[in-house]
Amino acid sequence: MSTSPRFDPQSREYGRRVKKAQQGLARRKLDAMVVYDRHNTFYLTGLHCSFSYLVISPREAFLLVDGRYIEAARETVRHIDVRLMRKPRQDLGRLLRGPRPRAVGFEGSAAWGTVDEWRSLLPGVEWHECGELILKQRLIKSPTEIKLIEKSARMTDQIFENVTGRIEPGMTEMDVRNRIRGEADRLGARALSFDCIVASGMTSSRPHYSPAERPLEAGELLLIDMGVVVEGYCSDMTRVVAVGRPPKPRLRRLYDAVLEAEQAALAAVKPGVACAELDRIARDKLKARRLGRYFIHGLGHGVGLEIHEAPTLNNRSQQILRAGMVITIEPGAYLPGRGGVRIEDLVVVTRNGRRVLSRTPKAFRVARFST
Amino acid sequence: MSTSPRFDPQSREYGRRVKKAQQGLARRKLDAMVVYDRHNTFYLTGLHCSFSYLVISPREAFLLVDGRYIEAARETVRHIDVRLMRKPRQDLGRLLRGPRPRAVGFEGSAAWGTVDEWRSLLPGVEWHECGELILKQRLIKSPTEIKLIEKSARMTDQIFENVTGRIEPGMTEMDVRNRIRGEADRLGARALSFDCIVASGMTSSRPHYSPAERPLEAGELLLIDMGVVVEGYCSDMTRVVAVGRPPKPRLRRLYDAVLEAEQAALAAVKPGVACAELDRIARDKLKARRLGRYFIHGLGHGVGLEIHEAPTLNNRSQQILRAGMVITIEPGAYLPGRGGVRIEDLVVVTRNGRRVLSRTPKAFRVARFST
Repeated sequence: MSTSPRFDPQSREYGRRVKKAQQGLARRKLDAMVVYDRHNTFYLTGLHCSFSYLVISPREAFLLVDGRYIEAARETVRHIDVRLMRKPRQDLGRLLRGPRPRAVGFEGSAAWGTVDEWRSLLPGVEWHECGELILKQRLIKSPTEIKLIEKSARMTDQIFENVTGRIEPGMTEMDVRNRIRGEADRLGARALSFDCIVASGMTSSRPHYSPAERPLEAGELLLIDMGVVVEGYCSDMTRVVAVGRPPKPRLRRLYDAVLEAEQAALAAVKPGVACAELDRIARDKLKARRLGRYFIHGLGHGVGLEIHEAPTLNNRSQQILRAGMVITIEPGAYLPGRGGVRIEDLVVVTRNGRRVLSRTPKAFRVARFST
Repeated sequence: MSTSPRFDPQSREYGRRVKKAQQGLARRKLDAMVVYDRHNTFYLTGLHCSFSYLVISPREAFLLVDGRYIEAARETVRHIDVRLMRKPRQDLGRLLRGPRPRAVGFEGSAAWGTVDEWRSLLPGVEWHECGELILKQRLIKSPTEIKLIEKSARMTDQIFENVTGRIEPGMTEMDVRNRIRGEADRLGARALSFDCIVASGMTSSRPHYSPAERPLEAGELLLIDMGVVVEGYCSDMTRVVAVGRPPKPRLRRLYDAVLEAEQAALAAVKPGVACAELDRIARDKLKARRLGRYFIHGLGHGVGLEIHEAPTLNNRSQQILRAGMVITIEPGAYLPGRGGVRIEDLVVVTRNGRRVLSRTPKAFRVARFST
C-alpha cells in the first residue's frame, strides 16, 4: 500500500517531468539543482514528504530522504535513484560535490537561511536562483492534472451543496465551517486546500475573515470560500447565498453587480489574453456600478498543487493566458459594516477558450432554514 | 468581534515583546527590521494574517496590511501603528527609506527570492539575517503562553480519549483520522497542529505515515500522533494502543522498551541539561535492548506557535534546556514490516525540573472493540 497518492502508478509522466527539468538545467548551463520545495518534489517524484533533497543534474537525479520516509520513497519512486539520508547537510554536500559542479541552481522559495547553509557546504560554487524552471512546467497542466483538479472541484461542489442544503436557525459560522470539514473528511479529501472562509452578515465585508461563533441571521448574506485537496491537487470556489429570506435590495444589487463582473471576466478567458486585461474587465464592470473602490483585491490566481500559484491575475500582472493554465476568476465588492460578495469559479484555459470546473450554480439563491 | 484569537486583550505582553525586539535591534546596531514570518508577526502583534510587513526600528513599529486584513488589524492591534498597504513593494520601500537606514535585519525563514526583492528596493543598504532576535524570545514561553499550550494539550488528551474509546471492527485508519478531526472541530480547535499520523499494524513502522483506507485488525498496534492549535498555540502527543486484543509478545516488549526510554529521558529534563544528553539517555536505553538502530529520528523538538520550533533535541543539538522551554520527548523504535512504537509527551521545563503537559496515561492498553 502506498502512502503517497499517485494519480497513475504506471504513468511515465514523472519521468518526463524530470527529463524536462534536466533539459532546462542544461540550457541554463547549470551543473545541478537542489529541489527542496515539497510541491516541486511531489511534482517530479510523486512522493509526499515534508523534508527531502532532490538533486538533479542534466544526466542524473537523486532523491535523499531520511528514515521516516525511506520505505514510502522506495515504494513510490521508481524513476529516480532513492538514497537514505543520515546526516542531511553532510549527505547533501557529498552528493553535490560528486560531479564537482561550478554552478548549482536552487528555488527562490527556499528559506534564505537554508540557501545560506548550502552555500557554506560548497565554497567556490556559484549558486543561481532557477525555481522558474519547474514553476514554468507546473504552470501548464497536463490532461491528467486537469482531471485531478476537476475531481477536486467536483468534491467542493458536493460539499457546498451538502452544507448549504441544511442551514438551521441558530447555526454559527463555526458550525458551517465544521460541517464543511466534516463533509470533506467524509468524502475522502486529503485536506482542505486552505482554512475555509465562512463569513456572514457584515463580517462578509472582510475578504479573509476567519469564522467565529456568530449565529447566522435571516436576511444576511453567507459567504463561503473553500476548496479541498484531492490526490495532491487543490480546488477553490466562492459562493454567496442569502440566509433564510431575501436580503435588503442593496445587498441583492451588490450580488448582481459582482456576478455581472465575474461573468464578463469569465467570458473573456482564452489563450493570448493578458491577465491584467481580465482584471480590468471585471473592475470596469464594478466601476460602472460605482463599486470600483470596494473591489479591494486582485481578480484571481493560478491553482494546482498549491492553492495560490502562477499566474497572478491583477492589474500589475505581466502574464498572458495559455492553454492548460488553471485559474480562479473571483471579483468581489465589500461594503464596510454592511457585507460583501465574492463569486469565484475555477477555470481551465482551453485551446479555444475556457472550461469552468466549478459547477455550483451562481443564480442568486436563498438558503431556507431547514428545521 | 475580533477575527484574531488573542489570549488577553488587556495584556501588555505584546507591547513588551515589541520593546524587547527593539532593544535587540539597538544592540545589534540595526536601524530597522522587516518581520515577515506569520508566527513572528502574531507573536509581536496578536494578529493572524497570511501576508503583512511589520517594520520595527529601535524606536518605532509599523504594521502594513492590505485591504483584506485592515479592519481586523485596526481592531486587534493597538500598540503598533497600523497602515493600509496598497502596493506592497512600493509601500514597504517608502516606509523603510523614511529613516534612511544603513543596516536592515530580516528573518532567515523568509524565502530567498523575497529577501532578494527587498534588497533591490533599497540599494546601498546592508541586509543582515537577524531572525534569532525574535526566535530567542519565543524560545522561553511566558506563563500566559504556557497556559495556552496546556489548554491545547488538554484538548488533545480529550480527543484521544474520545476517539480510542470507541474503536469498532472494520474501522480504517482514515476513519480514525476523520474522528480525530471531527472531535477537534467539535471541541473548538482552530485546526490540527499538523496532519495527524494514524498508523496501524506494520504501517506503524513508518514514523511519518499518512493514514489510508486500511482496516484496523485485532492484535495490531495503533499509533496516533496528533495535536491541535488553540488560540495560536500547538500541542503534540503520540500514544500507541493495541487494537481488540493483546499483541504478540515481541510488540509488547517493543512498547515497554520505548516507554522505558521515554521515561528515562523525561526524568532527566531540567534547566541546564543539554538537549543532546537527553537524546543520548533515551538512545542508550533502546541500545541496551538492542533496539538502537530502530530509533531512526531525534528525541524531540520545541513546540509553541509552531509545531516544530527551537530547541531541537537530537544527538547533534548544541542547545541547553532553560526554564520556560516547551518541548516534546518522543523516542520511537520501528521494526520494518512488523510495526513501530513511539511515545511522546509535551513537557514544560520548570525552574526545578519539568511538568508534563500530556495527561493521557502511558500504561500499555488494549482498546477493546465496542460494538
